[in-house]
Amino acid sequence: MPDHNLDLPGSAEVFSAAQDIAEQIHRTPLIGSSQIDRHCDANIFFKCEHLQKTGAFKARGASNALCRLPAGTSMVATHSSGNHGAALAWAAGARGLACTVVMPDTAPLAKRAAVAGYGAEIVLCGPSLADREAALQRVVEDSGAHVVPPFDDSRVIAGQGTVALEIAQQCREEGFMPDIVLAPVGGGGLLAGVGLALSALAPDILVMGAEPAGADDAQRSLRTGVHITAQTPDTIADGLRTTLGQRNFAVIRRTVSDIVTASESAIVAAMQLLWTRTKQLVEPSAAVPLAAIMENSARFRGKKVVVVLSGGNMDLVRAVSLFAEEDKSS
Amino acid sequence: MPDHNLDLPGSAEVFSAAQDIAEQIHRTPLIGSSQIDRHCDANIFFKCEHLQKTGAFKARGASNALCRLPAGTSMVATHSSGNHGAALAWAAGARGLACTVVMPDTAPLAKRAAVAGYGAEIVLCGPSLADREAALQRVVEDSGAHVVPPFDDSRVIAGQGTVALEIAQQCREEGFMPDIVLAPVGGGGLLAGVGLALSALAPDILVMGAEPAGADDAQRSLRTGVHITAQTPDTIADGLRTTLGQRNFAVIRRTVSDIVTASESAIVAAMQLLWTRTKQLVEPSAAVPLAAIMENSARFRGKKVVVVLSGGNMDLVRAVSLFAEEDKSS
Repeated sequence: MPDHNLDLPGSAEVFSAAQDIAEQIHRTPLIGSSQIDRHCDANIFFKCEHLQKTGAFKARGASNALCRLPAGTSMVATHSSGNHGAALAWAAGARGLACTVVMPDTAPLAKRAAVAGYGAEIVLCGPSLADREAALQRVVEDSGAHVVPPFDDSRVIAGQGTVALEIAQQCREEGFMPDIVLAPVGGGGLLAGVGLALSALAPDILVMGAEPAGADDAQRSLRTGVHITAQTPDTIADGLRTTLGQRNFAVIRRTVSDIVTASESAIVAAMQLLWTRTKQLVEPSAAVPLAAIMENSARFRGKKVVVVLSGGNMDLVRAVSLFAEEDKSS
Repeated sequence: MPDHNLDLPGSAEVFSAAQDIAEQIHRTPLIGSSQIDRHCDANIFFKCEHLQKTGAFKARGASNALCRLPAGTSMVATHSSGNHGAALAWAAGARGLACTVVMPDTAPLAKRAAVAGYGAEIVLCGPSLADREAALQRVVEDSGAHVVPPFDDSRVIAGQGTVALEIAQQCREEGFMPDIVLAPVGGGGLLAGVGLALSALAPDILVMGAEPAGADDAQRSLRTGVHITAQTPDTIADGLRTTLGQRNFAVIRRTVSDIVTASESAIVAAMQLLWTRTKQLVEPSAAVPLAAIMENSARFRGKKVVVVLSGGNMDLVRAVSLFAEEDKSS
């Protein structure tokens, strides 16, 4: 579908979102680590969205979508095995809206507990995308719920972009201008939002994406100009296994300068570096930008780079077992 | 030995320390968690000393001791299997002093790597306290190094107390007065320092200690008035296995209102709560105060409590295995 048939968000929508969600979300801190800077020979600032409400930036997009519901909506729904489901459940609970989250029966118990803890109803389904979509369709038909998609949605993209407005403001407060803002890319809600916001607010800052080499559809889409809509992802970064959304691709190709990738071993090493040096519990997906800096060092050497730490929700036992495996193999 | 033969620090030494170490250390943040507040029915603020230089409050005491060395000292030494060794190595390196740390050959590789990474020489010895003291004595005789003890030292106590001055200032900035400041107690450097600082600066705030039930010498010493100098500790909180120092006991009995204890299962549960709710990687010893709040809830209900998160250095694989064991047994 050509772009002109899509309802694409503009940067004005990001500014409106920032105003409308300001009271619901945290202004998360921007932190540094001199040890990581020495390790990477760059000046890296981490935007701590793992400290955002619900433990991920997804709270921004969900919150903004719920500020812009069709009149009379009393129930929302989505399908998600991850952070978007929890974020929508939280945002709906805060507004007194009913919420149903369709989750694959393979989703970790901790993620089910988070969604249930925010008061949403969970509908379990089979693990395939077709299973999920069919189950969500049944929910919509039975209940009339309004669907809030995880990333391919203008309200969600604009909401995620608010993180970049905060970054720009915090950098000004700290008295520096970053050369690059680097965000992980899965479905592309975060990266498209950041691109939109900074192309309007600070066009001199390069916006770049980072994704696992084992799920590099966004890099291939951006570099070839052809939107790749299917892949077989192979990565521990569970938040980045989705393919780029249609609106997301349309925004990213206009506002993002490049996408870099990271190997699985670099993702584990970056996550371990973040845990041990910053003492911040970030999930594998959040470690992908630092991993990409480590593996594309020439691109980042001597630069001021803001990295979005996208979330901090994971199975801890599984995450630590990755460190043990990596230590053994290295 | 009666108190009057000891060179005890006063609160003036804490104020001097704060001035002298201000440029070497971080002013760590004070954070909250609405989920933990609901869980504990109290209003808890966490002072993030796991984000301090070297990942523990020990950087304060080591830094202050090195501001007060005998003239002409060019080398310092200590024995430590934990955070004090790394802190002294770091502080010595920053001043261009040579440093030797006597470590038991059973100390985790990660701790040896940290000490070596700060440029100190490591002398390995057997695991008993007698082994360590003999090895340290040989280092002193061979090199003339000046010994900086881990806790039973006025300079160290005054340095650790600076954390309480920051807490008082941050609470004022946030517009509230805490009812209680709760710090973990092992050798007692931190708790004595906090007691000294707050008895002078804010005598209305109760200062309390928290220790593992399996290493409760400080509670028994304080409650009976008789300094217990030997125990057989049995706790995962490796930073709190030491017995209370002589100077530390003398200060604590004058400035600390009570010491509460926590079971091992509560320590694991509190650590898991901190990891998952605040996304902060704190070590078992740092989770002891929250564990003690959970197990002595009547003492803390409805109160404003500042908890010192003392450090964030640990073997991650071992820490996460504790969660898995606890999940199985509960």
